[in-house]
Amino acid sequence: MTQDIISYFKSLQLEICNALEIADGKSKFILDEWSRPEGGGGLTRVIKEGNVIEKGGVNFSCVEGNLPAFLQKESKTGNASSFLATGVSIVIHPLNPWVPIIHMNVRYFEMNDGTWWFGGGIDLTPHYVNEEQAHWFHLQLRNACDKHEMDFYPKFKKWADEYFFIKHRNETRGIGGIFFDHLNENATMLNKSGLFNFVKEVGNTFAPTYLELINLNKDLPFTEQNKQWQLLRRGRYVEFNLVYDRGTKFGLETNGRVESILMSLPKMASWEYDFVPLSGSPEHQTLHFLNPKL
Amino acid sequence: MTQDIISYFKSLQLEICNALEIADGKSKFILDEWSRPEGGGGLTRVIKEGNVIEKGGVNFSCVEGNLPAFLQKESKTGNASSFLATGVSIVIHPLNPWVPIIHMNVRYFEMNDGTWWFGGGIDLTPHYVNEEQAHWFHLQLRNACDKHEMDFYPKFKKWADEYFFIKHRNETRGIGGIFFDHLNENATMLNKSGLFNFVKEVGNTFAPTYLELINLNKDLPFTEQNKQWQLLRRGRYVEFNLVYDRGTKFGLETNGRVESILMSLPKMASWEYDFVPLSGSPEHQTLHFLNPKL
Repeated sequence: MTQDIISYFKSLQLEICNALEIADGKSKFILDEWSRPEGGGGLTRVIKEGNVIEKGGVNFSCVEGNLPAFLQKESKTGNASSFLATGVSIVIHPLNPWVPIIHMNVRYFEMNDGTWWFGGGIDLTPHYVNEEQAHWFHLQLRNACDKHEMDFYPKFKKWADEYFFIKHRNETRGIGGIFFDHLNENATMLNKSGLFNFVKEVGNTFAPTYLELINLNKDLPFTEQNKQWQLLRRGRYVEFNLVYDRGTKFGLETNGRVESILMSLPKMASWEYDFVPLSGSPEHQTLHFLNPKL
Repeated sequence: MTQDIISYFKSLQLEICNALEIADGKSKFILDEWSRPEGGGGLTRVIKEGNVIEKGGVNFSCVEGNLPAFLQKESKTGNASSFLATGVSIVIHPLNPWVPIIHMNVRYFEMNDGTWWFGGGIDLTPHYVNEEQAHWFHLQLRNACDKHEMDFYPKFKKWADEYFFIKHRNETRGIGGIFFDHLNENATMLNKSGLFNFVKEVGNTFAPTYLELINLNKDLPFTEQNKQWQLLRRGRYVEFNLVYDRGTKFGLETNGRVESILMSLPKMASWEYDFVPLSGSPEHQTLHFLNPKL
C-alpha cells in the first residue's frame, strides 16, 4: 500500500496546484525537485505574485533512511531500524486580506518493523473572521470526517484548537479546523485502507473548500488599514510557525530542507509595538474571536 | 550594590534614548511602564517612524519573585528561594538599509542565598557588510574589554560568534560582537565591583559606537533592491530571535511581558522562496561573509 499512498500524494499535489492556478488566473507554480543526502527527496511547487495568491507553496516529499534514535520509542516491536515518511504540505498566503490563509497537511509514516500511521489536517487563518464562512468551513470538514468515523470530527477539531494556539499571545492562530496524528488500527476503528480512504477524503476536501472561500472574497475591496492588519496577522503566523509548529521545529532540528520547511512564511509580515485595535472595529472583533478573554 | 546596579541600568536607558533621539532628529521614544503580577516590572521605551530609526526599543526591567525550579541548580548553596533580575535590552531597526541593526543587553541576576552574576553583550547585524566598519566596530568592543581583563575580548567575541548563529541557514545573524553570561568572581579575575565597572563600560560603549555607524551611513542613497534585501535580512533576524534566542525563548516560556520581549522584531520583514543573490553582487558578498562556505 505504501506505493499507492506515495502515488496518491503526488497526484494530490498536482491536482491542487492545477486547481489553485485556475483560481488564481495569473501566476503558475514553479517546480523545484530536490533530493535528500540521507535518502529520498521531494517536489516543492511554489507560486507568487498572483492575482489571488501573494505567496504559496505545495510541497510533496518522500524521505527515508535510518530511524532517528528519538523515534525508536514509537516502534511497535522496539526493533525498527529504518523509516519512510511521505506527505503533502500546503500554505497559501493570499493577496487580498479578506481571503483567509489556509494550511493543509496529509502524511504517512512507516518503519521497517511494520509500525505505521497517518497524520494531517486542514486549518484556516482568516485575517478577518467571517462567522458565516467559518461555520461553512468547519461544516466541510465535518462532512469529510463523518463519512469515515463519527468521533473523528469532534476529536480532530479539539486537537486543532489545542494545537494551533499561540500560547504567549493567548490567541488561536486562526479558527482551527481538524488536526490528527498517529492514526492507525490501534488508535481508530478503521484498518489501514479505511484510514487511507479518510486521508484521501481530507486531501480531496482541500481544493473545493478553499476555492469557494477564494471566490467569495477575492474581489472584495480593501483599504490600506485592512492590508496593515493582514501584515500584523501574518506576523502572528510567523510567530506560531517558528515558535510552536512541530513540523517546522522537527524539520529545522533534523537538518531538513530549509526552503521547503519555511515556504510557509509570508512574503511580507509586520510587527507593531502593542498594537490595540479600536474597540468595535472589525480588527477588534477578530481578536475577540481568537482570544475570547479580550 | 544591587540598588546601584538598578540605578545605573535605569540611567543608562535614559541616556541611550536621549542619544538616539538626537541622532534620529525626528521621532521621540514613547514610554510604557508595566508591572509584573509576580513581582517587579519595567519601563519599555519604543520609537518608530523616525528619520533614522524605523522601529526600535530600549527596555529596562527589574523583576523579582520566587526562584523557578529550573534555576535551583544555579544556586551556590542549593537553598535559594527567590531571585531578582534587572537589565537593559536594546534592538534598533533602522530605515536605511546601509545602517546596521544593533542589539545590546546588559543584565544582572541575583538569588537570596548570595548567588549573583552579570551577563550581556553588543552585536551588530548589517544588511550589507562593510568590512572597514565591521573592523572598527569590533575594535570599539575590544577597547572596552581590554580596560578590564585581557582575556575578555577573545573569549566574548568567540561566544558571540557561536551564539548568534542561525543553524538551519548555516549563517551567522550578523558580524557578531561580544556576548557574556554568568560572570562572577569565580568565573573571572574581577570582583563584583570590578565586573560592575566592566558592564558599565559595555553599556557606555553602545551609544557612541552606534551613533558613529548611523552618521557614516544614514544619508547614503538606497534603491528598491537594497530595501528588499533589508527586508529579507530582517526575516533572518526574526528567525534567529524566535527559534534560537535564549532571552526570547525564556521570556515566552515563563509568561514574560510579550510586547517587551518581541519589541526586537522589525516593523516589516520578508521571506522569498530560495532567494539567491546574483554572483558578485553586494548581497552575495554579504552572504559570503556570513556563511564562509558559500
